[in-house]
Amino acid sequence: MTGTNSGQMKLGAFLMAGGHHIAAWRHPDAIANAGVNIDHFIELARMAEAAKFDMVFVEDAAAIRERDPDLASQGARSTMFEPLSLLAALAVNTSHIGLVATASTTYNEPYGLARAFASLDQLSGGRSGWNLVTSASELEAENFVSSGLRPHAQRYERAEEFAGAAAALWDGVDSDAHTISDGVYADPAKLHPVDHHGKHFTLTGILDSQRSPQGRPIMVQAGASEAGKNLAARTADVVFTAAQTIEEAQAYYADLKSRMPAFGRKPDDLKILPGISPIVANSQSEARAKYEALQDLIPDEVGVALLASYLSIKDLSQYPLDGPLPEMPATDGIQSRQQLIVDQARRENLNIRQSARKFAGARGHWQLIGTPMQIADRLEERFLAKAADGFNIMGAYFPGALKDFIDLVLPELRRRGLFRTEYEGKTLRGNLGLSIPERAV
Amino acid sequence: MTGTNSGQMKLGAFLMAGGHHIAAWRHPDAIANAGVNIDHFIELARMAEAAKFDMVFVEDAAAIRERDPDLASQGARSTMFEPLSLLAALAVNTSHIGLVATASTTYNEPYGLARAFASLDQLSGGRSGWNLVTSASELEAENFVSSGLRPHAQRYERAEEFAGAAAALWDGVDSDAHTISDGVYADPAKLHPVDHHGKHFTLTGILDSQRSPQGRPIMVQAGASEAGKNLAARTADVVFTAAQTIEEAQAYYADLKSRMPAFGRKPDDLKILPGISPIVANSQSEARAKYEALQDLIPDEVGVALLASYLSIKDLSQYPLDGPLPEMPATDGIQSRQQLIVDQARRENLNIRQSARKFAGARGHWQLIGTPMQIADRLEERFLAKAADGFNIMGAYFPGALKDFIDLVLPELRRRGLFRTEYEGKTLRGNLGLSIPERAV
Repeated sequence: MTGTNSGQMKLGAFLMAGGHHIAAWRHPDAIANAGVNIDHFIELARMAEAAKFDMVFVEDAAAIRERDPDLASQGARSTMFEPLSLLAALAVNTSHIGLVATASTTYNEPYGLARAFASLDQLSGGRSGWNLVTSASELEAENFVSSGLRPHAQRYERAEEFAGAAAALWDGVDSDAHTISDGVYADPAKLHPVDHHGKHFTLTGILDSQRSPQGRPIMVQAGASEAGKNLAARTADVVFTAAQTIEEAQAYYADLKSRMPAFGRKPDDLKILPGISPIVANSQSEARAKYEALQDLIPDEVGVALLASYLSIKDLSQYPLDGPLPEMPATDGIQSRQQLIVDQARRENLNIRQSARKFAGARGHWQLIGTPMQIADRLEERFLAKAADGFNIMGAYFPGALKDFIDLVLPELRRRGLFRTEYEGKTLRGNLGLSIPERAV
Repeated sequence: MTGTNSGQMKLGAFLMAGGHHIAAWRHPDAIANAGVNIDHFIELARMAEAAKFDMVFVEDAAAIRERDPDLASQGARSTMFEPLSLLAALAVNTSHIGLVATASTTYNEPYGLARAFASLDQLSGGRSGWNLVTSASELEAENFVSSGLRPHAQRYERAEEFAGAAAALWDGVDSDAHTISDGVYADPAKLHPVDHHGKHFTLTGILDSQRSPQGRPIMVQAGASEAGKNLAARTADVVFTAAQTIEEAQAYYADLKSRMPAFGRKPDDLKILPGISPIVANSQSEARAKYEALQDLIPDEVGVALLASYLSIKDLSQYPLDGPLPEMPATDGIQSRQQLIVDQARRENLNIRQSARKFAGARGHWQLIGTPMQIADRLEERFLAKAADGFNIMGAYFPGALKDFIDLVLPELRRRGLFRTEYEGKTLRGNLGLSIPERAV
């Protein structure tokens, strides 16, 4: 199996402190202080590895997540470990699963970040991945510059240059450069200085690491804008996305893959993994009850404040909660997420309170509530319909929701031949069935 | 014991790939590929923890270490793990030992670095430390800017602002902010936004972490210039330094501690740990033979190139190797190290070849070759003479030289009551006998 769409699904386990549901930390089975509990993350990573997931995935923002005091008081997401140190700690407690950390091209420099991912790659024997983001939040901008959030186009211009410089650094060290024998540690002829003189960065050095066991760390992206899709088509190995309907997912999938040949790449060189939040139980009514119990933990004001922050609306509570969403302001934040919320409200005729509750559960990602058979049917349908190459599983609360998916849904996917029973390789690239990209330099 | 000079020594284990000696990787007992071998580092950290060392210490540079092809071919130091990911991996394999990583204020931003150290602190239960450096190497500058290495004064001005902003971030989260009970995750009134508008940084956010178990990560410095000493007197908990003679060490110790009252600090609030490279054996002749065997592994051209790089001399090999060192050029690099080499050459009447060989062994740090009794005598002498509060042990090659120090010298220091037999606390700050500094905000 090479993991093409006609083969098997790829699966990520998207980890997040107590869980993806805004009220996860209040769930009676959740570990409330999960964000600073490394044993909890080690348990989750080992659970995902035992289940043969391709990767664990960790989001990031260089700021607290919510400015609103109501949200801040519920801010379980704002006390996470920094992703690269978290994944380094997980690297030495796992052996096969990929380790994907989110990191920003807007608030880092190429040398520092390329090195950190190279280091994680060496620590893990070739299992690191970088989810490249451009940091759409004003709260992040306030921690770095006085001039506010940079416009979307500027951020992506910098991101493109950043990704190129990082690739050049990784490719500048030949795989046989470090012979470490006959009195020679490294062959200087096999270490190639980067010669980058761009608009945003100057970089003329050599990466102080050895060649990645997987050639280069895996590149992950989630861009949904034109600039984001083009960057992904050109540089990404994996794309993490959000889609509610199969039609939306198919359209995105076809669009993104069709952009790849222009960059000299085959559609199979990139795996598209939409996020899904499964709530599974042995009966439909039991699954629904699990979901409602979680939803009941969301205070109205918290749900509304969370929705407002994703919509870039300063104070949504001034509008009647039983009425429709107001007109949307222009945003330099995540434009696609704003659109997704508006579309869903229109499609399902949701008022503000209903939109808020729905969104707080999975933050715009596809929520699947049902039996193992029902969920496997829906995943198989999207996989075969070229709406997805696999999925990034967003447990509503940990470890429960991830464990349920593993125990109940995975056996059904395996019975259908849709998911592996053993890892194919030892590197993340190997398990994703991807080949090492051409040298950037 | 509170760890004052009248009490017991503090000890660091300065880890470095194959070892501190330039030819360490060529030693028959060394692990040649140590720089990318995490099991090797875990073994060293556990060995140091079993011996009750206060901390492991890791240096850093955001670049390969040597431009000269002769040096690059011997460049075992240039394939190290990135320190914060390395120490995160060590954090989950240890329980008491401090974890000190070097990181640059010139090529990072306060929010990113403060977060990374806060994360390491949470991962380790309060054992992180940050060795603040300003990055004196031109090789690093080339990876970040087109304008070359910034002048010393500019780097220190930025460092001072950086350290203040980081402290404000750490102090902005009250220790009782995260109650995680009664439906409240965090109390917004106990999260204090930083309000920093400086020359180099603007920062108005809140750290996305919980309060450090040790109040703040430990601050380590190695500055020897006027600006460096003032910054250390004001902000450092530990100072790592290099001194050859007891007089030099005493003068530095007295100078640095005398600067502290002006910043409202007591001399005991800072521990000065000179680096030492011990080569120990049960007889003097055996120790000498061990040392000479290592020295014989240094090719002349490698030693001379290494010396030239520390002296900021482009091509030292144009001068006769049997002659004296030439006039020194002005440098924006490490001025104190240049002076130390010149002083030692004058004091011991060394020609270039001899200086190079001597320097290649311990890079300017104090080299002690002798029996356990002899070495314990010298360490005790410096400790009691207020030349040091302890030492940072730089094993010439790993694990051998560190193991020898632990097996042979530590029992003698313990017999004299000069070193602990058990950890006093669980945090690095607790073991160093330091109290939590006053709030920066």
